[in-house]
Amino acid sequence: MSTFTIPTESSYIEAEGVRFAYRKFGQEAGIPLVFFIHFRGTMENWDPIMIGALAENRPIILFDNAGVGESSGETPPTIAEMAKDAASFIKALGLEKVDILGFSIGGMVAQELALQQPNMVRRIVLAGTSPRSGVSERREGVYEAMTESSGNDARENFLFLFYGPTETSRAAGIASLKRILGQKKVESSSQVTEAQFKAVSEWAQREPEQKYDWLQKITQPVLVTNGVEDIMVATKNSYILTVNLPNAQLIIYPDSGHGHLFQYPEQFAGDVNRFLDAE
Amino acid sequence: MSTFTIPTESSYIEAEGVRFAYRKFGQEAGIPLVFFIHFRGTMENWDPIMIGALAENRPIILFDNAGVGESSGETPPTIAEMAKDAASFIKALGLEKVDILGFSIGGMVAQELALQQPNMVRRIVLAGTSPRSGVSERREGVYEAMTESSGNDARENFLFLFYGPTETSRAAGIASLKRILGQKKVESSSQVTEAQFKAVSEWAQREPEQKYDWLQKITQPVLVTNGVEDIMVATKNSYILTVNLPNAQLIIYPDSGHGHLFQYPEQFAGDVNRFLDAE
Repeated sequence: MSTFTIPTESSYIEAEGVRFAYRKFGQEAGIPLVFFIHFRGTMENWDPIMIGALAENRPIILFDNAGVGESSGETPPTIAEMAKDAASFIKALGLEKVDILGFSIGGMVAQELALQQPNMVRRIVLAGTSPRSGVSERREGVYEAMTESSGNDARENFLFLFYGPTETSRAAGIASLKRILGQKKVESSSQVTEAQFKAVSEWAQREPEQKYDWLQKITQPVLVTNGVEDIMVATKNSYILTVNLPNAQLIIYPDSGHGHLFQYPEQFAGDVNRFLDAE
Repeated sequence: MSTFTIPTESSYIEAEGVRFAYRKFGQEAGIPLVFFIHFRGTMENWDPIMIGALAENRPIILFDNAGVGESSGETPPTIAEMAKDAASFIKALGLEKVDILGFSIGGMVAQELALQQPNMVRRIVLAGTSPRSGVSERREGVYEAMTESSGNDARENFLFLFYGPTETSRAAGIASLKRILGQKKVESSSQVTEAQFKAVSEWAQREPEQKYDWLQKITQPVLVTNGVEDIMVATKNSYILTVNLPNAQLIIYPDSGHGHLFQYPEQFAGDVNRFLDAE
């Protein structure tokens, strides 16, 4: 196991009135990989083993989007506006071409960014996410756990939403959570929660006869991943993304759910490195 | 690109009245990987680049099942009997534990073998295949191409069924087919075609409310693969296998169909090697 630690000091850059906090590290040369974190998460919510294995092969950029964590501004209530903020941040850094990896709501922002800025994005990883108007197969108790009205504490809600139901999955989840909490200093405000919840709800709205034709416009190579049983963002959405995107590969990992990338941090990072380094 | 050539001389072993032809090569030590080929194919129908990359890491066993290619006997008309013949062959070799890789009808035989001989099988790769009572989304012209009543020659039928519709997929298919034909000496008889067609038709019969509960009995780790658009054995069947097997990983490759494993012989072999070598 790697003993990699994500650098603890943020850098800052101003763009469109927002002071964006970010951390850039890993290889000096190559296309940077920019990360988009899950609901309510900050740049400190990535599993450091996974990040470390990716940082060996490429420059890594973690950041807090507008209103999130250490960044100033307000979190907007739509995925499209979040993608616009992200594009301002990437441009402010002077980067012309990046790879992007989005997890959960971050994968929705990554799709929108690819649509808005097709020339900025080289390759895309979509983990545990859904296309617009995806399918919902939410397990009982998921809404309560997401809004923390379940009566359980935050740790139990997280383990329920991201891991299980097996002991092996839960144990891997506990180990990853310990790694993440060991590096976590800053929480997001309740404004983030409310705005992100609104954005995800709007994104999820079912349109009758939705054919996902707009996915044809994302022509970059895409790697889609999820655990075999994601109780929050149904795994079936990863299959729908793959068969409707023009150039997508799918990996579904066994005995895991939403948190598959943290449950198998080295395997996942290996798969992502191979995908990003392919011709 | 590897310049590996599959050994051209067969060995023979007698079991249950059948003289089985086979070729064993690759690493001396380790769990052997036994291959189950597609409809009408013989042990000479595997892409040698794919086989070569797997042979570097493990013992390889290619064989012709009863009635096929260089083996004696008759091809039985059910998948279950084919699995029984395969078990006799593996036992006759004195092997107690093997990994198995089945492609198309070979993947059906591999599932049946795992059910009949749970202790014989360690890990399973299912490529371009379907569970019993899978879903059918066959493209127009597929039946005609399979039975060679389409008016096209055998090469065109093969390219239509295994590759396309893009130029990149077709070109990769032509290159693979050239490698395969360069090593092919023996064809199967029409008895094989008729019996296998009967077996696959019986396997494919839709049962109302089929819940795939029997897949729960295959407890070995399974790697399921297909191309994103298999026009013969619908790709959706690979998703169904993955979510119903208790311990399965899924990889769907872009811009490819049934012949995904021959289109990406090195990438596929790398994925299989990592899966078989995992803890």
